[in-house]
Amino acid sequence: MPRTVAQKILQQHSDDTVGEAGQIVRCRVSMVLANDITAPLAIKSFRAMGAADVFDKDKVALVCDHFTPNKDIDSAEQVKVVREFAKEKGITHYYEGGNVGVEHALLPELGLVGPGDIVVGADSHTCTYGGLGAFATGMGSTDIAGAMALGETWFKVPPTIRVEITGTPEKHVGAKDYILNLIGKIGVAGALYKALEFGGGVVDGLSIEGRMTMANMAIEAGGKVGLFASDAKTLKYTKAAGRKGDETLSADSGAIYERVVDIDVTGMEPQIACPHLPDNVKPVSEVKDVEIHQAVIGSCTNGRIEDMREAAAILKGRKVSSSVRCIVLPATPKIWRQCMDEGLFAIFMDAGAVIGPPTCGPCLGGHMGILAGGERCIATTNRNFKGRMGSLQAEVFLANPAVAAASAVTGIITHPKDI
Amino acid sequence: MPRTVAQKILQQHSDDTVGEAGQIVRCRVSMVLANDITAPLAIKSFRAMGAADVFDKDKVALVCDHFTPNKDIDSAEQVKVVREFAKEKGITHYYEGGNVGVEHALLPELGLVGPGDIVVGADSHTCTYGGLGAFATGMGSTDIAGAMALGETWFKVPPTIRVEITGTPEKHVGAKDYILNLIGKIGVAGALYKALEFGGGVVDGLSIEGRMTMANMAIEAGGKVGLFASDAKTLKYTKAAGRKGDETLSADSGAIYERVVDIDVTGMEPQIACPHLPDNVKPVSEVKDVEIHQAVIGSCTNGRIEDMREAAAILKGRKVSSSVRCIVLPATPKIWRQCMDEGLFAIFMDAGAVIGPPTCGPCLGGHMGILAGGERCIATTNRNFKGRMGSLQAEVFLANPAVAAASAVTGIITHPKDI
Repeated sequence: MPRTVAQKILQQHSDDTVGEAGQIVRCRVSMVLANDITAPLAIKSFRAMGAADVFDKDKVALVCDHFTPNKDIDSAEQVKVVREFAKEKGITHYYEGGNVGVEHALLPELGLVGPGDIVVGADSHTCTYGGLGAFATGMGSTDIAGAMALGETWFKVPPTIRVEITGTPEKHVGAKDYILNLIGKIGVAGALYKALEFGGGVVDGLSIEGRMTMANMAIEAGGKVGLFASDAKTLKYTKAAGRKGDETLSADSGAIYERVVDIDVTGMEPQIACPHLPDNVKPVSEVKDVEIHQAVIGSCTNGRIEDMREAAAILKGRKVSSSVRCIVLPATPKIWRQCMDEGLFAIFMDAGAVIGPPTCGPCLGGHMGILAGGERCIATTNRNFKGRMGSLQAEVFLANPAVAAASAVTGIITHPKDI
Repeated sequence: MPRTVAQKILQQHSDDTVGEAGQIVRCRVSMVLANDITAPLAIKSFRAMGAADVFDKDKVALVCDHFTPNKDIDSAEQVKVVREFAKEKGITHYYEGGNVGVEHALLPELGLVGPGDIVVGADSHTCTYGGLGAFATGMGSTDIAGAMALGETWFKVPPTIRVEITGTPEKHVGAKDYILNLIGKIGVAGALYKALEFGGGVVDGLSIEGRMTMANMAIEAGGKVGLFASDAKTLKYTKAAGRKGDETLSADSGAIYERVVDIDVTGMEPQIACPHLPDNVKPVSEVKDVEIHQAVIGSCTNGRIEDMREAAAILKGRKVSSSVRCIVLPATPKIWRQCMDEGLFAIFMDAGAVIGPPTCGPCLGGHMGILAGGERCIATTNRNFKGRMGSLQAEVFLANPAVAAASAVTGIITHPKDI
């Protein structure tokens, strides 16, 4: 049977014969992930299950990235639980303090995830690793506890929606815009428990960072996973991250897709997801005269070095509007350091931005840029649900880093070509 | 009548004849300060008083430094109140976002405070500006509202304790140690409603930054103000900050002091204020085998460039212990930029520290490094009250930046000479 990328990866990790969509299969996992919010719950379940040790000390990653440096006593207590568990179980990949980064930027950078892997994480944006060709998905903390103990879990084989992205991109339009456009087309439930499999010339040309940006938001269409075939570019990336033995993987010719969605990016404008859902997507030209109070550049969606460079290219020699707080959050210590060494921080500082440490920060209403009632934020993050970044009376607009930077300068949502 | 520094400054700002301690005098103020915690209260009182405008748009500073970038909805709402008031009243010196720094580091840097000034602030560490020879003191928000409206306030002329600091300092011992030593000697109420006036050869030799570190903690001995005579060094500092016409000012010969405290720094070790009061001070050699979980280098006490250099000198080529989170918070955007440009951030990053934006952060239990129960922190901050930095079951030890850095490396409280 010709198989999709999802089916092929599941098969590689299963003793069952992986067949059609809907089948339940049992799979070995390559990496199990939790963070400072979800790990304490997973640990509680892990203990309640009577589990003694984690299945493999090198295949569990605990990343305290959401509310750190600890924003309050509750978050400090949460981190303490994770730290003590990591110590007790001898977990290799525990991250806190100076070595912590946003989990979905950190794990690829450290070579902890790669093509053909199955990664389960107690975090909905675990799907990010699909950009590397990993079957990666978010799960509840109890399922993660089981996976931590057993090294395996079950999946329902997802049907796959093939997304073909073709055409010639305009300037200031990229991965974030393609995925927003798709979500706008199919809706926030358009890929519910389905695999999204991205292909086409534009995808082939995308950097790994760009692919991760797209995979990251698969969940915003309800996707179980957002998958890219792994290619030479993938292997170059994972080799540089220290991995060995990775192989390319792509869908079989004749694989069965539930549906094919074609997106031609020629002439596409930067896309904006307007409040309060990621599928409320409009081209920037239709989002007129929207005054903003804050711009956030960072997160697991757009906190990588390419994103920082894109924002810096816009902010260079310009000033953030006096009515805007522009908060830049490079996603990992390595990216932070790169920004500094490449002179991007000098640009951000000259522009009047605030540079924070690697943290999820305001994306999920955590800290480092929470909104008051009546405030509007343009953000390179992934969700704009009501109350997501603070007050229920605040509004979040999702965009790419260039748009966020341009809007920070003008104080209204702006196409980068217009500044 | 020969006068102390306090009496001379009060006289310059009063139409009353300033006499002995205990007299109530009415004084014009040079600058009125509030922050994101206290300004909303002051604004509420200001409005309740029926005040129309602030007395001088250039003499009110509103600095949103405590919980910013906004840590939560409440802090975002607080900042919004301050922002809107600043806009409504046309206040020149409103700071938020990219131009905000820790108020007591920011105002001197911007030339907003200087010798001979009277500065009242709705923040207890307003006394910092005593390092520049300003009569500067913390007040409640209602008093600050009155001062914002009227440009004047009343004081009870404080008696003065003269502190003579002499001798030859040891390596790794400086301003923070002198003030901790004094607080240890006279106690947290030792200077209650009194002026501390610092003098002696060691003080003359201190940098302005060092003098501000000492003045900053006058309040930890209950002091109304912590005053230094202003000298050529002071004028050089304030001129560089853009001020004109400042003059030196020192106590008259024969001024009446309530008491003289002599401190000979020769042979003095780095001082540690142990939990849970700033007067529980011991030489570092007597604080043995105290394991720490966090080191905080920053704050209005020790977040200036000299402090950063001192910490960097220790951290250079060394690694922060894996059991310690080392959080570095340069106090202003200018200092942040200096740290980056001088290569201090590279040192901090190589060592494994986290670098935050300019904020008061964890010092007052705000954010960016709050402690869980059972955790111990060494901090260059100014208060170690029970619960000050988070959990009531946490402990904070106050020290100078070199000691905090050395302890971050070893994981136990350490004399910098011992690493």
